[in-house]
Amino acid sequence: MTTPRIHIVTLGVGDLPRARRFYEALGWRASSTSNEAIVFLKGAGGVLALYGRAALAEDALAEDLPTGFAAVTLARNAHSREEVDAWFATAVAAGAHAMKPPQEVFWGGYSGYVADPDGHLWEFAFNPYFVFDEQGNLALPD
Amino acid sequence: MTTPRIHIVTLGVGDLPRARRFYEALGWRASSTSNEAIVFLKGAGGVLALYGRAALAEDALAEDLPTGFAAVTLARNAHSREEVDAWFATAVAAGAHAMKPPQEVFWGGYSGYVADPDGHLWEFAFNPYFVFDEQGNLALPD
Repeated sequence: MTTPRIHIVTLGVGDLPRARRFYEALGWRASSTSNEAIVFLKGAGGVLALYGRAALAEDALAEDLPTGFAAVTLARNAHSREEVDAWFATAVAAGAHAMKPPQEVFWGGYSGYVADPDGHLWEFAFNPYFVFDEQGNLALPD
Repeated sequence: MTTPRIHIVTLGVGDLPRARRFYEALGWRASSTSNEAIVFLKGAGGVLALYGRAALAEDALAEDLPTGFAAVTLARNAHSREEVDAWFATAVAAGAHAMKPPQEVFWGGYSGYVADPDGHLWEFAFNPYFVFDEQGNLALPD
């Protein structure tokens, strides 16, 4: 069995240009494969796609009910507390909602949460116990 | 500004052992850093974490409302239609709900969706226009 991975995380959004501007302000870069219906954002490693939420529901044959709590969070891991603070400030300046200002947390790290303009939750975290591999991914022990 | 990425996708789940079994059946491998409260699953590249949904809401200072449509989908991209069919069958055999059987789709590819035991949506897709880089990530043009 080949090793699984997440190639694309797709976020359903209410206003595609607004969502694109938000993520570009955070350093994501739209691929030229993007069009008026979908934006493919290139980060390092995986792809973050933005798509109309009704269209996304229809694509999955799901019902487009109000979200409530999505029970999904996306995390970007930093090399320092200062980097967490900087990412949090950049996101809020770009229009994110500050959910949890960066703070020391029970597991020994430093973490904050924002919600993007559509409510998708991002954690910015420094975990002193995690190391990165040469590609910049987290290198967790087996 | 350093290139952003998603290091961890965390899914809030109702039954941690059940969710772990499901993802292990799909080829994800739990890191020894996992504990009774959180499971860190290693794929290729990023990390998929499983955490109690109430605890995840509390961590983000979000309200644990019932999830309607989460408006988030995770995609694994295949090298062929046959691989999509195989992943879909494996997921359903492991307890996923079949949302959309793999089929030819309007953008020229082949795609199906399942919901994991907690309702998180996964797309398995073959996109004949996408290529992979040497790490196995999607290599989208700038």
